[in-house]
Amino acid sequence: MLPTGNFPKKVYLNGEILDSHDAKISVFDRGFLFGDGIYEVMVQLENGIFYKKAHLDRLQDNLDKISILFDVRDIDDALIGLLSASGLSQKSSLIYMQVTRGIAPRKHAYPKGAAASVMMYALPYELPPINPKRMKAIIESDFRWHRCDIKSISLLGNIMTNEAAMESGNDEAALVRNGILTEGSHTNIFFVRDGTVITHPADEHILNGITRKIVLQLCGELGIPVMERPLREEEIPDMDEAFFTGTTTQIASISQLGDHSFGHGDEVGRTTKKLQGAFALLREKDTAETTL
Amino acid sequence: MLPTGNFPKKVYLNGEILDSHDAKISVFDRGFLFGDGIYEVMVQLENGIFYKKAHLDRLQDNLDKISILFDVRDIDDALIGLLSASGLSQKSSLIYMQVTRGIAPRKHAYPKGAAASVMMYALPYELPPINPKRMKAIIESDFRWHRCDIKSISLLGNIMTNEAAMESGNDEAALVRNGILTEGSHTNIFFVRDGTVITHPADEHILNGITRKIVLQLCGELGIPVMERPLREEEIPDMDEAFFTGTTTQIASISQLGDHSFGHGDEVGRTTKKLQGAFALLREKDTAETTL
Repeated sequence: MLPTGNFPKKVYLNGEILDSHDAKISVFDRGFLFGDGIYEVMVQLENGIFYKKAHLDRLQDNLDKISILFDVRDIDDALIGLLSASGLSQKSSLIYMQVTRGIAPRKHAYPKGAAASVMMYALPYELPPINPKRMKAIIESDFRWHRCDIKSISLLGNIMTNEAAMESGNDEAALVRNGILTEGSHTNIFFVRDGTVITHPADEHILNGITRKIVLQLCGELGIPVMERPLREEEIPDMDEAFFTGTTTQIASISQLGDHSFGHGDEVGRTTKKLQGAFALLREKDTAETTL
Repeated sequence: MLPTGNFPKKVYLNGEILDSHDAKISVFDRGFLFGDGIYEVMVQLENGIFYKKAHLDRLQDNLDKISILFDVRDIDDALIGLLSASGLSQKSSLIYMQVTRGIAPRKHAYPKGAAASVMMYALPYELPPINPKRMKAIIESDFRWHRCDIKSISLLGNIMTNEAAMESGNDEAALVRNGILTEGSHTNIFFVRDGTVITHPADEHILNGITRKIVLQLCGELGIPVMERPLREEEIPDMDEAFFTGTTTQIASISQLGDHSFGHGDEVGRTTKKLQGAFALLREKDTAETTL
Protein backbone atom coordinates (compact mmCIF):
# COMPACT_ATOMS: atom_id res chain seq x y z
CA MET A 1 0.00 0.00 0.00
CA LEU A 2 1.10 3.55 -0.65
CA PRO A 3 1.35 6.00 2.24
CA THR A 4 -1.28 8.73 2.28
CA GLY A 5 -0.61 11.64 -0.06
CA ASN A 6 -1.59 13.11 -3.37
CA PHE A 7 -1.04 10.02 -5.49
CA PRO A 8 -2.93 9.51 -8.74
CA LYS A 9 -5.79 6.99 -8.94
CA LYS A 10 -4.31 5.09 -11.85
CA VAL A 11 -0.90 4.44 -13.34
CA TYR A 12 -0.12 3.35 -16.87
CA LEU A 13 2.76 0.89 -16.74
CA ASN A 14 4.02 -0.98 -19.79
CA GLY A 15 0.67 -1.37 -21.47
CA GLU A 16 -1.44 -1.89 -18.35
CA ILE A 17 -3.53 0.55 -16.39
CA LEU A 18 -3.20 -0.24 -12.70
CA ASP A 19 -4.40 1.11 -9.38
CA SER A 20 -1.58 3.25 -8.04
CA HIS A 21 -1.13 0.89 -5.09
CA ASP A 22 -0.40 -1.93 -7.51
CA ALA A 23 1.89 0.01 -9.85
CA LYS A 24 5.22 -1.64 -9.18
CA ILE A 25 8.33 -2.04 -11.27
CA SER A 26 11.08 -4.62 -11.06
CA VAL A 27 13.96 -3.56 -8.84
CA PHE A 28 16.13 -4.49 -11.84
CA ASP A 29 14.65 -1.71 -13.94
CA ARG A 30 17.49 0.60 -14.90
CA GLY A 31 15.37 3.54 -13.84
CA PHE A 32 15.66 2.29 -10.26
CA LEU A 33 19.28 1.08 -10.43
CA PHE A 34 20.89 3.85 -12.50
CA GLY A 35 18.45 6.75 -12.97
CA ASP A 36 18.63 5.63 -16.60
CA GLY A 37 15.56 7.25 -18.13
CA ILE A 38 13.87 10.40 -19.43
CA TYR A 39 10.76 12.15 -18.15
CA GLU A 40 8.21 14.74 -19.22
CA VAL A 41 5.53 16.75 -17.47
CA MET A 42 2.57 18.18 -19.41
CA VAL A 43 -0.68 19.85 -18.43
CA GLN A 44 -4.12 19.30 -19.90
CA LEU A 45 -6.10 22.55 -19.98
CA GLU A 46 -9.47 23.63 -21.36
CA ASN A 47 -8.45 23.03 -24.96
CA GLY A 48 -6.42 19.87 -24.78
CA ILE A 49 -2.92 18.99 -23.71
CA PHE A 50 -0.88 22.17 -23.79
CA TYR A 51 1.87 21.84 -26.43
CA LYS A 52 1.60 18.06 -26.31
CA LYS A 53 3.52 17.53 -29.54
CA ALA A 54 6.33 19.81 -28.39
CA HIS A 55 6.67 17.75 -25.19
CA LEU A 56 6.55 14.41 -26.99
CA ASP A 57 9.05 15.63 -29.61
CA ARG A 58 11.42 16.58 -26.79
CA LEU A 59 10.87 13.22 -25.10
CA GLN A 60 11.79 11.46 -28.35
CA ASP A 61 14.79 13.72 -28.83
CA ASN A 62 16.02 13.00 -25.29
CA LEU A 63 15.49 9.23 -25.62
CA ASP A 64 17.47 9.33 -28.86
CA LYS A 65 20.28 11.27 -27.15
CA ILE A 66 20.85 8.42 -24.69
CA SER A 67 19.96 5.64 -27.17
CA ILE A 68 16.82 4.36 -25.46
CA LEU A 69 14.87 2.68 -28.24
CA PHE A 70 11.28 3.82 -27.99
CA ASP A 71 8.84 5.50 -30.34
CA VAL A 72 6.85 8.20 -28.55
CA ARG A 73 4.06 7.76 -31.07
CA ASP A 74 3.12 4.74 -28.96
CA ILE A 75 2.25 7.09 -26.12
CA ASP A 76 -0.69 8.95 -27.68
CA ASP A 77 -3.19 6.08 -27.54
CA ALA A 78 -2.04 4.99 -24.11
CA LEU A 79 -2.54 8.55 -22.87
CA ILE A 80 -6.18 8.60 -23.95
CA GLY A 81 -6.78 5.34 -22.07
CA LEU A 82 -4.98 6.60 -18.98
CA LEU A 83 -6.90 9.89 -18.84
CA SER A 84 -10.17 8.06 -19.30
CA ALA A 85 -9.40 5.47 -16.59
CA SER A 86 -8.31 8.30 -14.30
CA GLY A 87 -11.62 10.13 -14.81
CA LEU A 88 -9.67 13.02 -16.32
CA SER A 89 -10.69 12.99 -19.99
CA GLN A 90 -10.80 16.63 -21.07
CA LYS A 91 -10.29 17.70 -17.45
CA SER A 92 -7.58 19.96 -16.11
CA SER A 93 -4.73 17.70 -15.13
CA LEU A 94 -1.04 17.23 -14.78
CA ILE A 95 0.44 14.39 -16.81
CA TYR A 96 3.73 12.80 -15.78
CA MET A 97 5.54 10.28 -17.95
CA GLN A 98 8.88 8.56 -17.82
CA VAL A 99 10.60 6.09 -20.09
CA THR A 100 13.53 4.04 -18.80
CA ARG A 101 15.93 1.67 -20.53
CA GLY A 102 14.12 -1.33 -19.04
CA ILE A 103 15.03 -4.42 -17.07
CA ALA A 104 18.43 -6.09 -17.21
CA PRO A 105 21.04 -7.54 -14.83
CA ARG A 106 22.93 -4.63 -13.26
CA LYS A 107 25.86 -3.60 -15.45
CA HIS A 108 26.74 -0.03 -16.38
CA ALA A 109 26.81 -0.40 -20.18
CA TYR A 110 23.52 -0.42 -22.09
CA PRO A 111 21.97 -3.89 -22.24
CA LYS A 112 21.21 -5.23 -25.70
CA GLY A 113 17.59 -5.91 -26.45
CA ALA A 114 16.00 -4.69 -23.20
CA ALA A 115 12.49 -3.33 -23.74
CA ALA A 116 12.01 0.24 -22.52
CA SER A 117 9.70 0.68 -19.52
CA VAL A 118 6.97 3.31 -19.80
CA MET A 119 5.19 4.77 -16.79
CA MET A 120 2.61 7.55 -16.87
CA TYR A 121 0.00 8.98 -14.57
CA ALA A 122 -2.39 11.92 -14.46
CA LEU A 123 -3.53 13.99 -11.49
CA PRO A 124 -6.30 16.59 -11.25
CA TYR A 125 -4.49 19.91 -11.49
CA GLU A 126 -5.79 23.43 -11.89
CA LEU A 127 -3.55 26.10 -13.35
CA PRO A 128 -4.76 29.71 -13.39
CA PRO A 129 -4.12 31.50 -16.72
CA ILE A 130 -1.54 33.66 -14.96
CA ASN A 131 0.64 32.49 -12.08
CA PRO A 132 -0.09 35.10 -9.39
CA LYS A 133 2.87 34.10 -7.25
CA ARG A 134 5.92 36.30 -6.90
CA MET A 135 8.70 33.81 -6.25
CA LYS A 136 11.53 34.07 -3.77
CA ALA A 137 14.71 32.25 -4.71
CA ILE A 138 18.04 31.49 -3.14
CA ILE A 139 21.20 31.32 -5.21
CA GLU A 140 22.91 27.93 -5.10
CA SER A 141 26.01 26.53 -6.70
CA ASP A 142 25.12 24.60 -9.87
CA PHE A 143 26.96 21.35 -9.16
CA ARG A 144 24.86 19.28 -11.54
CA TRP A 145 26.27 17.43 -14.53
CA HIS A 146 27.18 19.09 -17.82
CA ARG A 147 24.35 17.57 -19.86
CA CYS A 148 21.44 19.45 -18.34
CA ASP A 149 19.97 19.54 -21.86
CA ILE A 150 18.96 15.90 -21.19
CA LYS A 151 15.73 15.69 -19.17
CA SER A 152 16.93 12.66 -17.27
CA ILE A 153 15.58 11.08 -14.10
CA SER A 154 19.12 11.15 -12.59
CA LEU A 155 17.95 14.18 -10.65
CA LEU A 156 19.81 14.09 -7.34
CA GLY A 157 21.57 17.41 -8.05
CA ASN A 158 18.25 19.08 -8.84
CA ILE A 159 16.49 17.77 -5.77
CA MET A 160 19.37 18.72 -3.46
CA THR A 161 19.26 22.33 -4.65
CA ASN A 162 15.46 22.40 -4.58
CA GLU A 163 15.53 21.05 -1.02
CA ALA A 164 17.92 23.86 -0.04
CA ALA A 165 15.36 26.35 -1.36
CA MET A 166 12.43 24.73 0.47
CA GLU A 167 14.39 24.32 3.71
CA SER A 168 15.16 28.03 3.77
CA GLY A 169 11.56 29.02 3.11
CA ASN A 170 12.09 29.94 -0.53
CA ASP A 171 10.24 28.86 -3.66
CA GLU A 172 13.12 27.97 -5.91
CA ALA A 173 16.90 27.87 -6.19
CA ALA A 174 18.59 29.79 -9.00
CA LEU A 175 21.79 27.99 -9.97
CA VAL A 176 25.17 29.56 -10.67
CA ARG A 177 27.95 27.75 -12.51
CA ASN A 178 31.32 29.49 -12.86
CA GLY A 179 29.70 32.80 -11.97
CA ILE A 180 26.94 32.41 -14.60
CA LEU A 181 23.23 32.04 -13.81
CA THR A 182 22.11 28.91 -15.64
CA GLU A 183 18.56 28.00 -14.60
CA GLY A 184 16.43 27.06 -11.60
CA SER A 185 16.33 23.64 -9.92
CA HIS A 186 13.31 22.80 -12.08
CA THR A 187 12.66 26.00 -14.03
CA ASN A 188 14.38 28.28 -16.53
CA ILE A 189 15.29 31.80 -15.48
CA PHE A 190 14.88 35.05 -17.41
CA PHE A 191 15.86 38.64 -16.76
CA VAL A 192 14.69 41.93 -18.22
CA ARG A 193 16.85 45.01 -18.60
CA ASP A 194 15.79 48.18 -20.40
CA GLY A 195 13.02 46.23 -22.08
CA THR A 196 15.32 43.45 -23.36
CA VAL A 197 14.72 39.89 -22.24
CA ILE A 198 17.91 38.03 -21.29
CA THR A 199 18.25 34.29 -20.73
CA HIS A 200 20.96 31.62 -20.81
CA PRO A 201 21.59 30.12 -24.27
CA ALA A 202 20.11 26.65 -24.81
CA ASP A 203 23.38 24.75 -24.52
CA GLU A 204 24.33 21.71 -22.43
CA HIS A 205 24.06 23.64 -19.16
CA ILE A 206 20.30 24.18 -19.21
CA LEU A 207 17.18 22.32 -20.19
CA ASN A 208 15.58 23.97 -23.19
CA GLY A 209 12.17 24.26 -21.54
CA ILE A 210 8.97 24.19 -23.59
CA THR A 211 7.78 27.30 -21.72
CA ARG A 212 11.21 28.86 -22.34
CA LYS A 213 10.73 28.31 -26.08
CA ILE A 214 7.18 29.69 -25.94
CA VAL A 215 8.41 32.82 -24.13
CA LEU A 216 11.08 33.43 -26.76
CA GLN A 217 8.43 33.02 -29.47
CA LEU A 218 6.09 35.43 -27.68
CA CYS A 219 8.93 37.97 -27.39
CA GLY A 220 9.27 37.79 -31.19
CA GLU A 221 5.54 38.33 -31.67
CA LEU A 222 5.39 41.18 -29.17
CA GLY A 223 8.48 42.91 -30.56
CA ILE A 224 10.42 42.42 -27.32
CA PRO A 225 14.18 42.17 -28.01
CA VAL A 226 15.87 39.03 -26.71
CA MET A 227 19.47 38.29 -25.83
CA GLU A 228 20.37 34.66 -25.22
CA ARG A 229 23.59 35.21 -23.34
CA PRO A 230 25.31 34.11 -20.12
CA LEU A 231 24.43 36.48 -17.31
CA ARG A 232 26.84 36.84 -14.41
CA GLU A 233 25.65 36.76 -10.82
CA GLU A 234 27.01 40.26 -10.18
CA GLU A 235 24.78 41.65 -12.94
CA ILE A 236 21.62 40.79 -10.98
CA PRO A 237 21.33 44.26 -9.34
CA ASP A 238 21.42 45.85 -12.82
CA MET A 239 18.34 43.93 -13.93
CA ASP A 240 14.86 45.48 -13.86
CA GLU A 241 12.83 42.27 -13.72
CA ALA A 242 13.32 38.54 -13.42
CA PHE A 243 11.04 35.54 -13.88
CA PHE A 244 11.07 31.77 -13.82
CA THR A 245 9.37 29.62 -16.44
CA GLY A 246 8.25 26.00 -16.44
CA THR A 247 5.33 23.80 -17.35
CA THR A 248 3.59 24.20 -14.00
CA THR A 249 5.40 27.43 -13.02
CA GLN A 250 4.28 29.04 -16.33
CA ILE A 251 5.75 32.55 -16.14
CA ALA A 252 6.34 33.51 -12.50
CA SER A 253 7.65 36.87 -11.48
CA ILE A 254 10.64 36.82 -9.11
CA SER A 255 10.41 39.14 -6.11
CA GLN A 256 13.65 38.12 -4.41
CA LEU A 257 16.80 36.55 -5.82
CA GLY A 258 19.49 36.04 -3.22
CA ASP A 259 20.02 39.47 -1.63
CA HIS A 260 18.34 41.39 -4.40
CA SER A 261 14.68 42.46 -4.52
CA PHE A 262 12.79 43.10 -7.74
CA GLY A 263 9.88 45.57 -7.68
CA HIS A 264 7.76 46.41 -4.67
CA GLY A 265 5.22 44.20 -2.92
CA ASP A 266 2.98 42.47 -5.42
CA GLU A 267 4.08 44.58 -8.34
CA VAL A 268 4.98 42.46 -11.39
CA GLY A 269 7.41 44.04 -13.86
CA ARG A 270 6.04 45.50 -17.09
CA THR A 271 7.65 43.06 -19.51
CA THR A 272 6.93 40.06 -17.30
CA LYS A 273 3.30 41.16 -17.15
CA LYS A 274 3.07 41.58 -20.90
CA LEU A 275 4.47 38.08 -21.44
CA GLN A 276 2.16 36.59 -18.81
CA GLY A 277 -0.82 38.13 -20.61
CA ALA A 278 0.25 36.81 -23.99
CA PHE A 279 0.99 33.39 -22.48
CA ALA A 280 -2.48 33.24 -20.91
CA LEU A 281 -4.04 33.79 -24.35
CA LEU A 282 -2.35 30.65 -25.70
CA ARG A 283 -4.71 28.57 -23.56
CA GLU A 284 -7.60 29.71 -25.71
CA LYS A 285 -6.10 27.82 -28.65
CA ASP A 286 -5.61 24.10 -29.14
CA THR A 287 -1.82 23.84 -29.01
CA ALA A 288 -1.65 20.03 -28.76
CA GLU A 289 -0.22 19.61 -32.25
CA THR A 290 1.89 22.77 -32.33
CA THR A 291 5.61 22.20 -32.78
CA LEU A 292 8.25 24.47 -31.30
CA MET B 1 8.70 -12.24 -15.19
CA LEU B 2 12.28 -11.10 -15.64
CA PRO B 3 13.98 -11.56 -19.00
CA THR B 4 16.73 -14.22 -19.09
CA GLY B 5 20.07 -13.08 -17.71
CA ASN B 6 22.30 -13.28 -14.69
CA PHE B 7 19.75 -12.20 -12.09
CA PRO B 8 20.08 -13.28 -8.45
CA LYS B 9 17.76 -15.93 -7.05
CA LYS B 10 16.53 -13.80 -4.18
CA VAL B 11 16.13 -10.12 -3.41
CA TYR B 12 15.86 -8.51 0.00
CA LEU B 13 13.33 -5.70 -0.22
CA ASN B 14 12.19 -3.72 2.81
CA GLY B 15 12.31 -6.60 5.26
CA GLU B 16 11.14 -9.35 2.93
CA ILE B 17 13.15 -11.91 0.98
CA LEU B 18 11.52 -12.43 -2.40
CA ASP B 19 12.10 -14.37 -5.56
CA SER B 20 13.78 -11.99 -7.98
CA HIS B 21 10.81 -12.19 -10.33
CA ASP B 22 8.58 -10.84 -7.57
CA ALA B 23 10.92 -8.13 -6.33
CA LYS B 24 9.05 -5.01 -7.33
CA ILE B 25 9.05 -1.50 -5.99
CA SER B 26 6.38 1.19 -6.21
CA VAL B 27 6.81 3.45 -9.23
CA PHE B 28 6.52 6.27 -6.67
CA ASP B 29 9.75 5.26 -4.99
CA ARG B 30 12.13 8.21 -5.28
CA GLY B 31 14.82 5.84 -6.48
CA PHE B 32 12.76 5.32 -9.63
CA LEU B 33 11.51 8.91 -10.02
CA PHE B 34 14.62 10.89 -9.08
CA GLY B 35 17.63 8.57 -8.77
CA ASP B 36 17.37 9.60 -5.11
CA GLY B 37 19.41 6.95 -3.34
CA ILE B 38 22.82 5.54 -2.45
CA TYR B 39 24.33 2.18 -3.34
CA GLU B 40 27.19 -0.11 -2.34
CA VAL B 41 28.83 -3.16 -3.85
CA MET B 42 30.77 -5.61 -1.67
CA VAL B 43 32.29 -9.03 -2.24
CA GLN B 44 32.20 -12.02 0.07
CA LEU B 45 35.45 -14.00 -0.15
CA GLU B 46 36.92 -17.00 1.68
CA ASN B 47 37.15 -15.14 5.00
CA GLY B 48 33.96 -13.15 5.08
CA ILE B 49 32.73 -9.96 3.46
CA PHE B 50 35.78 -8.02 2.33
CA TYR B 51 35.98 -4.74 4.28
CA LYS B 52 32.28 -4.95 5.11
CA LYS B 53 32.46 -2.32 7.84
CA ALA B 54 34.31 0.10 5.57
CA HIS B 55 31.55 -0.28 2.94
CA LEU B 56 28.73 0.10 5.45
CA ASP B 57 30.42 3.11 7.05
CA ARG B 58 30.62 4.73 3.64
CA LEU B 59 26.98 3.88 2.95
CA GLN B 60 26.00 5.58 6.22
CA ASP B 61 28.20 8.56 5.44
CA ASN B 62 26.63 8.96 1.98
CA LEU B 63 23.07 8.59 3.29
CA ASP B 64 23.85 11.26 5.87
CA LYS B 65 25.22 13.56 3.15
CA ILE B 66 21.87 13.59 1.37
CA SER B 67 19.77 13.37 4.56
CA ILE B 68 18.25 9.95 3.96
CA LEU B 69 17.33 8.73 7.43
CA PHE B 70 18.50 5.15 7.76
CA ASP B 71 20.75 3.29 10.16
CA VAL B 72 23.03 0.87 8.30
CA ARG B 73 23.29 -1.25 11.43
CA ASP B 74 19.89 -2.58 10.34
CA ILE B 75 21.55 -4.14 7.32
CA ASP B 76 23.81 -6.68 9.03
CA ASP B 77 21.08 -9.08 10.16
CA ALA B 78 19.20 -8.74 6.90
CA LEU B 79 22.39 -9.59 5.02
CA ILE B 80 22.81 -12.88 6.88
CA GLY B 81 19.24 -13.85 5.98
CA LEU B 82 19.69 -12.83 2.36
CA LEU B 83 22.91 -14.79 1.91
CA SER B 84 21.36 -17.83 3.51
CA ALA B 85 18.18 -17.65 1.37
CA SER B 86 20.37 -17.19 -1.70
CA GLY B 87 22.38 -20.32 -0.88
CA LEU B 88 25.47 -18.14 -0.57
CA SER B 89 26.31 -18.26 3.14
CA GLN B 90 30.11 -18.20 3.33
CA LYS B 91 30.30 -18.57 -0.44
CA SER B 92 32.09 -16.30 -2.88
CA SER B 93 29.58 -13.71 -3.92
CA LEU B 94 28.90 -10.18 -4.99
CA ILE B 95 26.57 -8.21 -2.75
CA TYR B 96 24.66 -5.23 -4.11
CA MET B 97 22.65 -2.92 -1.90
CA GLN B 98 20.84 0.35 -2.39
CA VAL B 99 18.90 2.60 -0.06
CA THR B 100 16.51 5.18 -1.48
CA ARG B 101 14.52 7.97 0.14
CA GLY B 102 11.33 5.91 -0.17
CA ILE B 103 7.83 6.42 -1.51
CA ALA B 104 6.12 9.80 -1.78
CA PRO B 105 4.06 11.82 -4.28
CA ARG B 106 6.48 13.22 -6.87
CA LYS B 107 7.89 16.56 -5.70
CA HIS B 108 11.55 17.57 -5.87
CA ALA B 109 12.07 18.53 -2.22
CA TYR B 110 12.59 15.77 0.35
CA PRO B 111 9.30 14.37 1.66
CA LYS B 112 8.83 14.46 5.41
CA GLY B 113 8.47 11.12 7.12
CA ALA B 114 8.95 8.80 4.13
CA ALA B 115 10.52 5.47 5.14
CA ALA B 116 13.74 4.65 3.26
CA SER B 117 13.54 1.70 0.85
CA VAL B 118 16.25 -0.94 1.15
CA MET B 119 17.05 -3.40 -1.64
CA MET B 120 19.86 -5.97 -1.60
CA TYR B 121 20.80 -9.06 -3.51
CA ALA B 122 23.73 -11.45 -3.74
CA LEU B 123 25.08 -13.30 -6.76
CA PRO B 124 27.65 -16.10 -6.96
CA TYR B 125 30.87 -14.35 -7.92
CA GLU B 126 34.43 -15.60 -8.08
CA LEU B 127 37.28 -13.14 -7.81
CA PRO B 128 40.83 -14.38 -8.36
CA PRO B 129 43.31 -13.01 -5.79
CA ILE B 130 44.93 -10.96 -8.53
CA ASN B 131 43.06 -9.49 -11.49
CA PRO B 132 45.01 -10.88 -14.47
CA LYS B 133 43.43 -8.47 -16.94
CA ARG B 134 45.37 -5.63 -18.48
CA MET B 135 42.72 -3.04 -19.16
CA LYS B 136 42.30 -0.87 -22.23
CA ALA B 137 40.64 2.47 -21.64
CA ILE B 138 39.41 5.37 -23.71
CA ILE B 139 39.63 8.92 -22.43
CA GLU B 140 36.25 10.63 -22.15
CA SER B 141 35.13 14.05 -21.03
CA ASP B 142 34.02 13.97 -17.38
CA PHE B 143 30.64 15.67 -17.74
CA ARG B 144 29.25 14.22 -14.50
CA TRP B 145 28.10 16.31 -11.59
CA HIS B 146 30.44 17.93 -9.06
CA ARG B 147 29.52 15.67 -6.13
CA CYS B 148 31.11 12.45 -7.33
CA ASP B 149 32.05 11.84 -3.70
CA ILE B 150 28.40 10.79 -3.24
CA LYS B 151 27.84 7.19 -4.35
CA SER B 152 24.41 7.97 -5.72
CA ILE B 153 22.19 5.94 -8.03
CA SER B 154 21.78 9.02 -10.29
CA LEU B 155 24.33 7.39 -12.56
CA LEU B 156 23.41 8.43 -16.09
CA GLY B 157 26.74 10.23 -16.62
CA ASN B 158 28.66 7.17 -15.49
CA ILE B 159 26.74 4.76 -17.67
CA MET B 160 27.03 6.99 -20.74
CA THR B 161 30.82 7.10 -20.43
CA ASN B 162 31.00 3.37 -19.64
CA GLU B 163 28.87 2.65 -22.71
CA ALA B 164 31.28 4.69 -24.84
CA ALA B 165 34.10 2.44 -23.58
CA MET B 166 32.20 -0.80 -24.26
CA GLU B 167 30.98 0.38 -27.68
CA SER B 168 34.55 1.04 -28.78
CA GLY B 169 35.79 -2.35 -27.55
CA ASN B 170 37.52 -0.99 -24.45
CA ASP B 171 37.27 -2.05 -20.81
CA GLU B 172 36.82 1.30 -19.14
CA ALA B 173 36.64 5.04 -19.73
CA ALA B 174 39.10 7.30 -17.91
CA LEU B 175 37.47 10.67 -17.31
CA VAL B 176 39.04 14.10 -17.78
CA ARG B 177 37.61 17.27 -16.26
CA ASN B 178 39.27 20.59 -17.12
CA GLY B 179 42.33 18.73 -18.35
CA ILE B 180 42.65 16.65 -15.15
CA LEU B 181 42.24 12.88 -14.95
CA THR B 182 39.66 12.28 -12.23
CA GLU B 183 38.65 8.59 -12.19
CA GLY B 184 37.12 5.85 -14.32
CA SER B 185 33.42 5.45 -15.10
CA HIS B 186 33.21 3.02 -12.16
CA THR B 187 36.79 2.78 -10.90
CA ASN B 188 39.52 5.00 -9.47
CA ILE B 189 42.66 5.56 -11.50
CA PHE B 190 46.28 5.54 -10.33
CA PHE B 191 49.59 6.27 -12.01
CA VAL B 192 53.18 5.41 -11.12
CA ARG B 193 56.17 7.54 -11.99
CA ASP B 194 59.72 6.86 -10.78
CA GLY B 195 58.27 4.59 -8.10
CA THR B 196 55.81 7.18 -6.77
CA VAL B 197 52.11 6.40 -6.86
CA ILE B 198 49.96 9.33 -8.05
CA THR B 199 46.18 9.61 -7.79
CA HIS B 200 43.53 12.32 -7.71
CA PRO B 201 42.85 13.76 -4.25
CA ALA B 202 39.64 12.52 -2.58
CA ASP B 203 37.62 15.68 -3.16
CA GLU B 204 34.16 16.18 -4.65
CA HIS B 205 35.27 15.12 -8.13
CA ILE B 206 35.94 11.46 -7.34
CA LEU B 207 34.48 8.69 -5.27
CA ASN B 208 36.81 7.79 -2.45
CA GLY B 209 36.84 4.08 -3.28
CA ILE B 210 37.35 1.45 -0.60
CA THR B 211 39.98 -0.20 -2.82
CA ARG B 212 41.53 3.23 -3.38
CA LYS B 213 41.87 3.65 0.39
CA ILE B 214 43.30 0.15 0.75
CA VAL B 215 45.89 0.85 -1.96
CA LEU B 216 47.00 4.06 -0.23
CA GLN B 217 47.30 2.11 3.02
CA LEU B 218 49.32 -0.62 1.31
CA CYS B 219 51.62 2.01 -0.20
CA GLY B 220 52.32 3.22 3.33
CA GLU B 221 53.07 -0.30 4.54
CA LEU B 222 55.28 -1.08 1.54
CA GLY B 223 57.16 2.21 1.72
CA ILE B 224 55.89 3.35 -1.66
CA PRO B 225 55.68 7.16 -1.82
CA VAL B 226 52.26 8.58 -2.70
CA MET B 227 51.21 11.89 -4.19
CA GLU B 228 47.52 12.70 -4.12
CA ARG B 229 47.51 15.39 -6.76
CA PRO B 230 45.64 16.34 -9.95
CA LEU B 231 47.32 14.78 -12.96
CA ARG B 232 46.93 16.45 -16.34
CA GLU B 233 46.05 14.44 -19.45
CA GLU B 234 49.25 15.54 -21.18
CA GLU B 235 51.32 13.99 -18.37
CA ILE B 236 50.15 10.48 -19.30
CA PRO B 237 53.14 9.75 -21.58
CA ASP B 238 55.51 10.62 -18.70
CA MET B 239 54.00 7.91 -16.49
CA ASP B 240 55.60 4.48 -16.12
CA GLU B 241 52.52 2.54 -15.03
CA ALA B 242 48.80 3.02 -14.57
CA PHE B 243 46.08 0.98 -12.90
CA PHE B 244 42.40 1.06 -12.08
CA THR B 245 40.97 0.07 -8.71
CA GLY B 246 37.50 -0.95 -7.63
CA THR B 247 35.67 -3.53 -5.56
CA THR B 248 35.34 -6.00 -8.44
CA THR B 249 38.19 -4.54 -10.52
CA GLN B 250 40.55 -4.90 -7.50
CA ILE B 251 43.87 -3.58 -8.84
CA ALA B 252 43.94 -3.88 -12.64
CA SER B 253 46.95 -2.90 -14.69
CA ILE B 254 46.23 -0.56 -17.60
CA SER B 255 47.80 -1.52 -20.94
CA GLN B 256 46.32 1.26 -23.05
CA LEU B 257 45.02 4.68 -22.07
CA GLY B 258 43.82 6.70 -25.05
CA ASP B 259 46.76 6.76 -27.47
CA HIS B 260 49.32 5.76 -24.90
CA SER B 261 50.51 2.19 -24.19
CA PHE B 262 51.95 1.10 -20.86
CA GLY B 263 54.43 -1.80 -20.84
CA HIS B 264 54.64 -4.55 -23.39
CA GLY B 265 52.17 -7.38 -23.96
CA ASP B 266 51.14 -8.95 -20.66
CA GLU B 267 53.84 -7.25 -18.64
CA VAL B 268 52.43 -5.64 -15.48
CA GLY B 269 54.45 -2.73 -14.08
CA ARG B 270 56.69 -3.35 -11.05
CA THR B 271 54.81 -1.16 -8.56
CA THR B 272 51.39 -2.33 -9.77
CA LYS B 273 52.55 -5.91 -9.34
CA LYS B 274 53.84 -5.26 -5.85
CA LEU B 275 50.51 -3.70 -4.83
CA GLN B 276 48.54 -6.53 -6.44
CA GLY B 277 50.56 -9.05 -4.42
CA ALA B 278 50.02 -7.19 -1.15
CA PHE B 279 46.32 -6.76 -1.95
CA ALA B 280 45.93 -10.49 -2.60
CA LEU B 281 47.32 -11.22 0.87
CA LEU B 282 44.52 -9.20 2.50
CA ARG B 283 42.10 -11.95 1.52
CA GLU B 284 43.79 -14.27 3.94
CA LYS B 285 42.58 -12.09 6.80
CA ASP B 286 39.05 -11.43 8.02
CA THR B 287 38.64 -7.77 7.10
CA ALA B 288 34.88 -7.59 7.70
CA GLU B 289 35.23 -5.37 10.77
CA THR B 290 38.26 -3.37 9.63
CA THR B 291 37.68 0.36 9.32
CA LEU B 292 39.42 2.55 6.79
